[in-house]
Amino acid sequence: MGEELKLFGVWGSPFSRRVELALRLKGIPYDYMEEDLSNKSPSLLKYNPIHKKIPVLLHGGKPVVESLVILEYIEETWEGNHAILPKDPYERAMARFWARFLDDKCMPAMWMSCWTEGDAQQNFMKESKENLSILEGELKGKKFFGGNAIGLVDIAALFIAHWAGVLQEVAGISLVNEEKHPILFKWIEEFISSDIVVECLPARERLLAFFQAKKETMLATKAPAQ
Amino acid sequence: MGEELKLFGVWGSPFSRRVELALRLKGIPYDYMEEDLSNKSPSLLKYNPIHKKIPVLLHGGKPVVESLVILEYIEETWEGNHAILPKDPYERAMARFWARFLDDKCMPAMWMSCWTEGDAQQNFMKESKENLSILEGELKGKKFFGGNAIGLVDIAALFIAHWAGVLQEVAGISLVNEEKHPILFKWIEEFISSDIVVECLPARERLLAFFQAKKETMLATKAPAQ
Repeated sequence: MGEELKLFGVWGSPFSRRVELALRLKGIPYDYMEEDLSNKSPSLLKYNPIHKKIPVLLHGGKPVVESLVILEYIEETWEGNHAILPKDPYERAMARFWARFLDDKCMPAMWMSCWTEGDAQQNFMKESKENLSILEGELKGKKFFGGNAIGLVDIAALFIAHWAGVLQEVAGISLVNEEKHPILFKWIEEFISSDIVVECLPARERLLAFFQAKKETMLATKAPAQ
Repeated sequence: MGEELKLFGVWGSPFSRRVELALRLKGIPYDYMEEDLSNKSPSLLKYNPIHKKIPVLLHGGKPVVESLVILEYIEETWEGNHAILPKDPYERAMARFWARFLDDKCMPAMWMSCWTEGDAQQNFMKESKENLSILEGELKGKKFFGGNAIGLVDIAALFIAHWAGVLQEVAGISLVNEEKHPILFKWIEEFISSDIVVECLPARERLLAFFQAKKETMLATKAPAQ
């Protein structure tokens, strides 16, 4: 394309890491701009004036926001490279369904399981485990959610593959469990051992230190996910 | 296609009405099955076991759920008919962004403005008015959100075109205001006077009676949107 491609993200965000993973799978070079969410840049506010959130993908001066919207944009703009969506309309609909299930159900319940206590925590943990069992069922018989290759749903599930383990350790709870979710567990091992995926993941120790330092504040405010 | 096409919906739901509108715009015949949400049918539970919600579009025996996912499925399955998404990847991304803005921001704030009181209501009303001003800006210079023809965003905004006025009347508040949102107001008039759109709308009086009857319960429970 020759047009400038810039990603505004945050190192520890699974949402901007999704975009990096899609671009790397497709072999598209991009410039990365690290944002400070406590002091958002004029560029971030200019390119995402409504939500004021990362990630923002700036392509030839035009911004695309919201990670799942960006992933579809990347797929449609660089169709020839590694496909992250199947061609069949029904399978595409299923991929979109599971990506939204991850965002709307799995991530909020997991996140809140880590930053609540008592009954509220028990309820979020119960919901999380039910969601994980649903994902376990969906993965059955497949190497990746996308079949034989990493697809949209795998990219959307990056949070479960890498962040979930760190957050569980910080919160002292167990959600993704090898015994209860053997298929999901195998998927995580396979997924995060891929070279391209590894390149997109924040270092585990750095993420752990980051959330450990935030733990008290998070428990006090029960802040929703960024 | 020749394959059986069935829509499970609820007469008063803007979500299943979206699907009806897309199918009618494309001229695709379908069978409609009215669901009773207080006594969900075995079919609904079978075809949407995770969310147990309408709408469900059953095509050749295969279910698609979640209204925005269904709309994209309809677009990709019957591409040749009235296009509800533009061809250009950037414009498609923008349409997806606005559709999600309607679902994630506009609808919840409007709904809660109607079923809360006091400070909570004032805050939701403030948020709703800000959202409406953003939509007003997006519509500027265009006949429809989709340009010259009804597109995905118009379909997603069906709630604002028809339900918002009814709910405002029930709650005794004013959100969509001709003086403050002249462009949005003109869009509503244009949109709901289209023959195909009219065919998809529940009768205003029936909707009004329905929400009036529910008002006390809604105010007491502050129930989120179905």
